[in-house]
Amino acid sequence: MKIAILGYGTVGSGVYDIITNGKPQELKKIEVKRVFARSRDKMPLATDDINEIINDGEILVVVECLGGINPAYEFIKKSLENKKHVVTANKAVAAKYLDEFVELAEKNGVKFIFEASVGGGIPWLVNLERTRRVDEVKRVYGIFNGTSNFILDNMYRNNEEFESTLKTAQDLGYAEADPSADVDGGDVVNKIILSNALAFDIHVDPDFPTYSMRNITKNDIDYLKQYDLAVKYIGETNVVDGKYETSVMLSIFGKESQEAAVPLNNNIITLDGSFIGELKFYGQGAGKLPTGNAIVQDIVDISEGASRVDVVINNNLTYTEELTRRNYLVRSSVKLTGNLIESIEEYKGNFYIKTKEISLKQLSRLVNDVKEQDSKYVVAKFHK
Amino acid sequence: MKIAILGYGTVGSGVYDIITNGKPQELKKIEVKRVFARSRDKMPLATDDINEIINDGEILVVVECLGGINPAYEFIKKSLENKKHVVTANKAVAAKYLDEFVELAEKNGVKFIFEASVGGGIPWLVNLERTRRVDEVKRVYGIFNGTSNFILDNMYRNNEEFESTLKTAQDLGYAEADPSADVDGGDVVNKIILSNALAFDIHVDPDFPTYSMRNITKNDIDYLKQYDLAVKYIGETNVVDGKYETSVMLSIFGKESQEAAVPLNNNIITLDGSFIGELKFYGQGAGKLPTGNAIVQDIVDISEGASRVDVVINNNLTYTEELTRRNYLVRSSVKLTGNLIESIEEYKGNFYIKTKEISLKQLSRLVNDVKEQDSKYVVAKFHK
Repeated sequence: MKIAILGYGTVGSGVYDIITNGKPQELKKIEVKRVFARSRDKMPLATDDINEIINDGEILVVVECLGGINPAYEFIKKSLENKKHVVTANKAVAAKYLDEFVELAEKNGVKFIFEASVGGGIPWLVNLERTRRVDEVKRVYGIFNGTSNFILDNMYRNNEEFESTLKTAQDLGYAEADPSADVDGGDVVNKIILSNALAFDIHVDPDFPTYSMRNITKNDIDYLKQYDLAVKYIGETNVVDGKYETSVMLSIFGKESQEAAVPLNNNIITLDGSFIGELKFYGQGAGKLPTGNAIVQDIVDISEGASRVDVVINNNLTYTEELTRRNYLVRSSVKLTGNLIESIEEYKGNFYIKTKEISLKQLSRLVNDVKEQDSKYVVAKFHK
Repeated sequence: MKIAILGYGTVGSGVYDIITNGKPQELKKIEVKRVFARSRDKMPLATDDINEIINDGEILVVVECLGGINPAYEFIKKSLENKKHVVTANKAVAAKYLDEFVELAEKNGVKFIFEASVGGGIPWLVNLERTRRVDEVKRVYGIFNGTSNFILDNMYRNNEEFESTLKTAQDLGYAEADPSADVDGGDVVNKIILSNALAFDIHVDPDFPTYSMRNITKNDIDYLKQYDLAVKYIGETNVVDGKYETSVMLSIFGKESQEAAVPLNNNIITLDGSFIGELKFYGQGAGKLPTGNAIVQDIVDISEGASRVDVVINNNLTYTEELTRRNYLVRSSVKLTGNLIESIEEYKGNFYIKTKEISLKQLSRLVNDVKEQDSKYVVAKFHK
């Protein structure tokens, strides 16, 4: 089976290396015919003319590793319209145009699959699909972003500040020069949108509660450590009785939990099924070979004609911000009062304000009050 | 697709309940026609004549939930010979007769699959199979037995002794009246044999180093706690350059590891792949609905014609006990000496003897010396 790879950066070259150097027999059936890239210096198969790929009837699968929205969107669309299967690791374009891609793929009798876009090398989406053949999923949550985990883990274990840790992450190549996607939530938002699609058949806009982790300090970590607690950056969706609720924010776990034990830039993602209970999947959520591996798994599924469950978007669930009630922790220089507050503790010049069990909607109002007076506030959920 | 369930105990009734009460569409295509059980009181489909099942041409899948070797062995064999797919959760019979069942299934053009036999509800074997389509697995290890984990976790968190904890586990139904399979290694031995088959294409006899956890005491746990260490009961196989080494024994982990964080009767199982690195799978390793769920996944795979990888046993690897070198900890009333010993510490009347980095073969000689003088010794590996 002949394929083309769009992009020859970290992920694209990882896919190429695994297909050409991997030992399993399944890989021998796959041949990279073309690579969409600017220069032939490093890659003799390179072409900078996308039409040489789109119009090549021999190429059955287009593997999109460009990242970003443009030209990835156009290339994926054209590939599907030309009856080519598309495999991508591009969470941004997949999360934004999922329903369009799914519809186009169905219309043209091809597959649009995106295992590597969530959890990198972790076989998360395929297991989520598989679980749903037998069970109902009630909840998904997890550490979807390795950079934010690297930062929080380093702050926790090495008692460092956010800024110095971010610098380390940037020096190691884990974080971009502009870290916003990792620390303000954009990356996790895309990944929870894609997880929602496979877990609950919904394609949602990114306008659910999303709180940055940018203001977290060593002081905050120390405060939580006193109570044997650790904080992680979590995407989460809960479903009850036809309603769903999604959020991306810092969440507080006991230090003996699986989540607290996730080191460095690893990910852990959980599904909770009615029969199966909690299943957790842990591994490398990014990187050349792990991400490349997940992409090649998708390619092998197409090559072997494996029965992947088709993505169905029926949007049968109703959005709410009043589904779950949780205790939240707000750290601020402002001493909040009111009937949503359970307790306030002062620790090294800051107020640590624990709310009663309130809804995301109530939290949102509370945070709006804080924000006006203290832009450096932090908010975290007590995980339950 | 019509199926028969052999046995209507915990697992068999779980399978029946999921198929008849589960909501996913895939389940509607499956019909339980017969159940092999003694009494029709609880189960109107019951028959105590296995031939009514074996000779029924409508029944395409036989789901063996009897446990134990006999009559499970004969029933599986007859089912395969009668060209019926067989799904089982029975690790004992699968580990013992794997090559025979695999050969019989191939000869008769049917499947023999056993997802639920290792890790209960955790999709471990299917992900191991899947990983190998793209990657080479170098190592598998993990907490394969929930009862032993329940005991060690309770001893660690609640400072209890082995005997009182075992009693609690028995009262909760986690441990049998005779706990030997769980605490002396038999259960983990079967599960690592089955994991070895899928990870490395080998079907091995259960004569590799297996050390009981029966002698562990609160004192041992306390000793390790001083160093921020926890102990878990681990099955492990390593492969290097055409050689393999397997063991079942207590293993010592840092208290911040994923393994140390596994609570109650949960399991966590890890594979280490050349490209993918470590992937960990966590969940309920036993119980009516988790185990039933894994069995029903196998049934759905058959029903949907899913491309499960066929088990291949080529036994191309050579057995050795000299592949890895590790530090071990021996606790004994005997003060060992000799050139394999790195250090000895006395703690509350016992000697805690740390070996140099030695092979399993060297460990075996050392333990033989100890055993003669102190039958209550404990041995554990420092996990690396």
